[in-house]
Amino acid sequence: MVKKMIKVGIIGSSGYTGGELLRFLKNHPETDIVAATSRQHNGQQIYKVHPHLRDMEMKFENLKPDEIDADLVFTATPHGASMKIVPELLENDMKVIDLSGDYRFENIKTYEKWYGFEHSHPLRAVYGLPEINRELIKNADLVANPGCYPTGAILACLPIVSEKIVENIVIDSKSGVSGAGIKPTDATHYPNCSDSVSPYAVITHRHGPEIQEKLSKFGNSKVSFTPHLVPVIRGILTTVHSFISEDVSSEYVNEIYKEFYDGEPFVRILDNSEIPRLSSVRGSNNCHIGCFDIDDNGRLVIVSAIDNLVKGASGQAVHNMNLMFGFQETESIDMIGLHP
Amino acid sequence: MVKKMIKVGIIGSSGYTGGELLRFLKNHPETDIVAATSRQHNGQQIYKVHPHLRDMEMKFENLKPDEIDADLVFTATPHGASMKIVPELLENDMKVIDLSGDYRFENIKTYEKWYGFEHSHPLRAVYGLPEINRELIKNADLVANPGCYPTGAILACLPIVSEKIVENIVIDSKSGVSGAGIKPTDATHYPNCSDSVSPYAVITHRHGPEIQEKLSKFGNSKVSFTPHLVPVIRGILTTVHSFISEDVSSEYVNEIYKEFYDGEPFVRILDNSEIPRLSSVRGSNNCHIGCFDIDDNGRLVIVSAIDNLVKGASGQAVHNMNLMFGFQETESIDMIGLHP
Amino acid sequence: MVKKMIKVGIIGSSGYTGGELLRFLKNHPETDIVAATSRQHNGQQIYKVHPHLRDMEMKFENLKPDEIDADLVFTATPHGASMKIVPELLENDMKVIDLSGDYRFENIKTYEKWYGFEHSHPLRAVYGLPEINRELIKNADLVANPGCYPTGAILACLPIVSEKIVENIVIDSKSGVSGAGIKPTDATHYPNCSDSVSPYAVITHRHGPEIQEKLSKFGNSKVSFTPHLVPVIRGILTTVHSFISEDVSSEYVNEIYKEFYDGEPFVRILDNSEIPRLSSVRGSNNCHIGCFDIDDNGRLVIVSAIDNLVKGASGQAVHNMNLMFGFQETESIDMIGLHP
Amino acid sequence: MVKKMIKVGIIGSSGYTGGELLRFLKNHPETDIVAATSRQHNGQQIYKVHPHLRDMEMKFENLKPDEIDADLVFTATPHGASMKIVPELLENDMKVIDLSGDYRFENIKTYEKWYGFEHSHPLRAVYGLPEINRELIKNADLVANPGCYPTGAILACLPIVSEKIVENIVIDSKSGVSGAGIKPTDATHYPNCSDSVSPYAVITHRHGPEIQEKLSKFGNSKVSFTPHLVPVIRGILTTVHSFISEDVSSEYVNEIYKEFYDGEPFVRILDNSEIPRLSSVRGSNNCHIGCFDIDDNGRLVIVSAIDNLVKGASGQAVHNMNLMFGFQETESIDMIGLHP
Repeated sequence: MVKKMIKVGIIGSSGYTGGELLRFLKNHPETDIVAATSRQHNGQQIYKVHPHLRDMEMKFENLKPDEIDADLVFTATPHGASMKIVPELLENDMKVIDLSGDYRFENIKTYEKWYGFEHSHPLRAVYGLPEINRELIKNADLVANPGCYPTGAILACLPIVSEKIVENIVIDSKSGVSGAGIKPTDATHYPNCSDSVSPYAVITHRHGPEIQEKLSKFGNSKVSFTPHLVPVIRGILTTVHSFISEDVSSEYVNEIYKEFYDGEPFVRILDNSEIPRLSSVRGSNNCHIGCFDIDDNGRLVIVSAIDNLVKGASGQAVHNMNLMFGFQETESIDMIGLHP
Repeated sequence: MVKKMIKVGIIGSSGYTGGELLRFLKNHPETDIVAATSRQHNGQQIYKVHPHLRDMEMKFENLKPDEIDADLVFTATPHGASMKIVPELLENDMKVIDLSGDYRFENIKTYEKWYGFEHSHPLRAVYGLPEINRELIKNADLVANPGCYPTGAILACLPIVSEKIVENIVIDSKSGVSGAGIKPTDATHYPNCSDSVSPYAVITHRHGPEIQEKLSKFGNSKVSFTPHLVPVIRGILTTVHSFISEDVSSEYVNEIYKEFYDGEPFVRILDNSEIPRLSSVRGSNNCHIGCFDIDDNGRLVIVSAIDNLVKGASGQAVHNMNLMFGFQETESIDMIGLHP
Repeated sequence: MVKKMIKVGIIGSSGYTGGELLRFLKNHPETDIVAATSRQHNGQQIYKVHPHLRDMEMKFENLKPDEIDADLVFTATPHGASMKIVPELLENDMKVIDLSGDYRFENIKTYEKWYGFEHSHPLRAVYGLPEINRELIKNADLVANPGCYPTGAILACLPIVSEKIVENIVIDSKSGVSGAGIKPTDATHYPNCSDSVSPYAVITHRHGPEIQEKLSKFGNSKVSFTPHLVPVIRGILTTVHSFISEDVSSEYVNEIYKEFYDGEPFVRILDNSEIPRLSSVRGSNNCHIGCFDIDDNGRLVIVSAIDNLVKGASGQAVHNMNLMFGFQETESIDMIGLHP
Repeated sequence: MVKKMIKVGIIGSSGYTGGELLRFLKNHPETDIVAATSRQHNGQQIYKVHPHLRDMEMKFENLKPDEIDADLVFTATPHGASMKIVPELLENDMKVIDLSGDYRFENIKTYEKWYGFEHSHPLRAVYGLPEINRELIKNADLVANPGCYPTGAILACLPIVSEKIVENIVIDSKSGVSGAGIKPTDATHYPNCSDSVSPYAVITHRHGPEIQEKLSKFGNSKVSFTPHLVPVIRGILTTVHSFISEDVSSEYVNEIYKEFYDGEPFVRILDNSEIPRLSSVRGSNNCHIGCFDIDDNGRLVIVSAIDNLVKGASGQAVHNMNLMFGFQETESIDMIGLHP
């Protein structure tokens, strides 16, 4: 049997993003999973928490960072927790892909304002959105994996912001409930979120400033962001409403997008007036972008669809890993969406 | 037994709005249902189509307008069909509440542009949104019952438009599937719309110009409207994104709303930052309005919730009837929402 | 204003059954709600927990049983908790309708075996299923309100058990998630129970012996019961599979049911081969029973549908109250189901 | 580039099973898809109907059987239609896997009784359930792919029928809506099937006799079958209620299952009292079987879970293809389930 190239560990592997990382890494030809940690489920079979991973013999372990011997560690830990373990991992010569918000901001003040506490261990990290930082990611030791909403929103806005054809942007996102994590809460209680649509953190969601910071490098558009919880398991549908600052046509905008994302392995630009569907990307690492309609008031609408747990989290993390270690970019994350 | 005051008929009673009209009128102490027409289900027990109306003995009949002898007729017919029967009903001295789009527009050109054909029988009608036209409705012979989206959107926008504190308004609405009617289509096929969120008619929905025309009487804001289909049976959640033109606070906006709707029997203004829930209004004729948050970019967010089949259609129609005939305004439509 | 006849209290009013009791009692012409207790939400507006009760000014109070002055108290408390307060309420000359399992069993040993602890305060109570105990309920001081599954299952089985035409009975029930209560758990977490069907407590559910004890008074059939959780908010659909012990026809069985429930205000017997729908009874106190098909193996299938929170809990409790105090039987619980 | 081994065609590829066949075959290293037929969508891009197959350039064609040049044809055609094309395909030296019911029955009289018409072209076919017919499938020219319900039900019942430890068997199945096909109907209209559970074809479903015929080869148990439609997109959860004819324990039954399916690549036997979940098999070709509880009445409960479109249709069809052509058995159908 061929020796696999790298050893990977997952810290905080009992959540949904941990389950997805295991799904992708299990069959990855270049990775050996050497650690899947969980404090709460220490010693338990992984499939007791992730029932779809029935065939994995592995058990969760309660390991400290210095007990892990790996080439790469995914930290699927809550914000505030990652900053306490990432520095040690790096010091021990492991590369890190952090799925929390801790290393996503260049401006540490913005982080501290929106997350509400001081950052104890700021470090330089590469923002792991391959469509904008592919080359930096290849050489990074620490990659900050983007938030789920920012992934769908930034990809939907980048070309028009870069082209400087819009001013204010309103981002109205609709997320499936898995985005709230594996832990039951009032908001995720079936009788509360079924047959319902709920805006939340209407002007205070932390992903708003993340979107703004990243887009600001490409243009001056001001971004207003509001997320909604919808009765969907997986998926984020983002409706971008923006007002064009010069007279462009839908066809022209569509062209801009097709050129901008030409060659990107995981972005698909639909035809003019075609609407992305969540089922097209369900379980897959793809982002579909469509619509491009402009109304009589000069409002341009762009719509994107991703699976929040894949392109919005673990699939993108594996994409980053593939880049960091020189594997084939699409390795183990080129699944087709599950429709219907 | 006391003689009931009026005889009512329903033309096109086999759809969802017909079923809801029957639910409200069945126990209304002032109305006798004298006709429930359906071409397709002629002769069939009503409960075969509306299974919740098990206890109604009545059958659908295939009646022509001139075969109906009533004081009031609800025309729950498609647009284009209503204009062919409403004039005759009026000529026969019946009052009419039309649930189609045919008589909602003052500007017949707008109607013809957006509905795509000539209007064969234009007539003066009162737009049946009691919150703006209560007195006119009381004396009307023909009431045009508002569209479902416009009901939720206009109520959410009226105070800020009237106060002239916002400029452009983006209305991002999310509707339950019952809004698409009782007839199965690709869009309403369970595997297509479950676990999904779909913008549709992104810049071309007919309810957009309806909202614009009604709001224009109160102020100059330009309205951009996009509806979404969400996996919900009943309910419309409308998120209004608008940009304030002068420096107002959330509390001030909240106050404006409370004053504006003071005394309205079916509108409830929530507290600042409180979000309306679809379950609070499910099955009821209430409209809840909340949020009032303003972000750093000056974007003000207003959120409204209604049941599309009740306040957005049949409940409002019965409200209009109660006004037209001097009954108690809330008679038979003061149900409490079904939560959870 | 007419003086209302009785004062009622609700102990444990912050759960779903509490919310439903409030919905029915709020507009009941004969009742004044004098207490709605909640330890957790003491001092909070009721509508903060039950958002559909927006118009209630009342607040939750943390009252002890002896601080309540009422003619009737509903104890919507967990099993094990009811037995600690019901005796004191009765001693203070209040009538009680208990919604827990504590007083449902005649055989206290059965209770203790299935609930797993000793019963500290056994008392004689009337089992509050009006269709079998109407006269006893009228004179009861303590009514044990039936479980949700037993309500749907017993009503579906009674006629065939009484007629002694079946032997073994397999009851395969499917319940909406609101039956699990207002408190979030892993089982009620949206991503877990959406797009899923889960048998649980397959041979150990406490409602099994409750069904068996009640049916045993009418015949000797042995009952096997298994509940399933389905992605539905409200409703229990019960499929009864039984094997006929003599040669009867579907039509004959249908006749038996129609006679058995003749005159019952809340039971509807559908036609032969007609299937009850959850939406027909959603939000209502009705029980629909249908099917009656018999296959080549002599298996007879009966299907019933109820709303677990109404006929399966709070609606039935108000029905019991109406009987106990001589009010009109259907007062305030004769809502029509919410379809679609 | 290596030459692929075989050419495959799909007749009737615009339905859900066609979409799934394309999903699996697209990346199969041994197959070239040479034809995907559709009368209705002739000339259209495949991804217009199957939006998840965005990356396929291929178009639907309206081809007659004799216009197809392939080594293997999947006929994803309705029953009654398959019998008109399968014989011609076989005569033209193509192997066939038929996904309709036309060739599933050994007893042609049973087919004609339950399908309601005469069979015009009876042929010998192998019933394509690899777990019972692996060797026959390897040498077959015509494989009749099992029905979705029968796949889940037969796998759940086989060991106890073979061991002759049960008598009557009641199979209560719950199916996701995709099982009803891609064409919208009243039953699949979102407002009708959301928040609902519906038994249908209670004693008349064609999959009942299919289950009975196949199980009869292993034992004498009489099977009673009733399907239910549940608000789920994909998946069949089958609850088997059977009465044991001798005194066995749950552990013993569990052992029987583990031995019976030892080595099967797509069947997993869960532990005693463990319940299969639809999400564990969503999108995958696995069948999970669990429970094994026995109650005081001697009722044994077995529960199985499959994805109706994969193990219940197209995944199993590809499994059969892999066997017929000597490919690796799990090739291109060893996906992990999509949980949550």
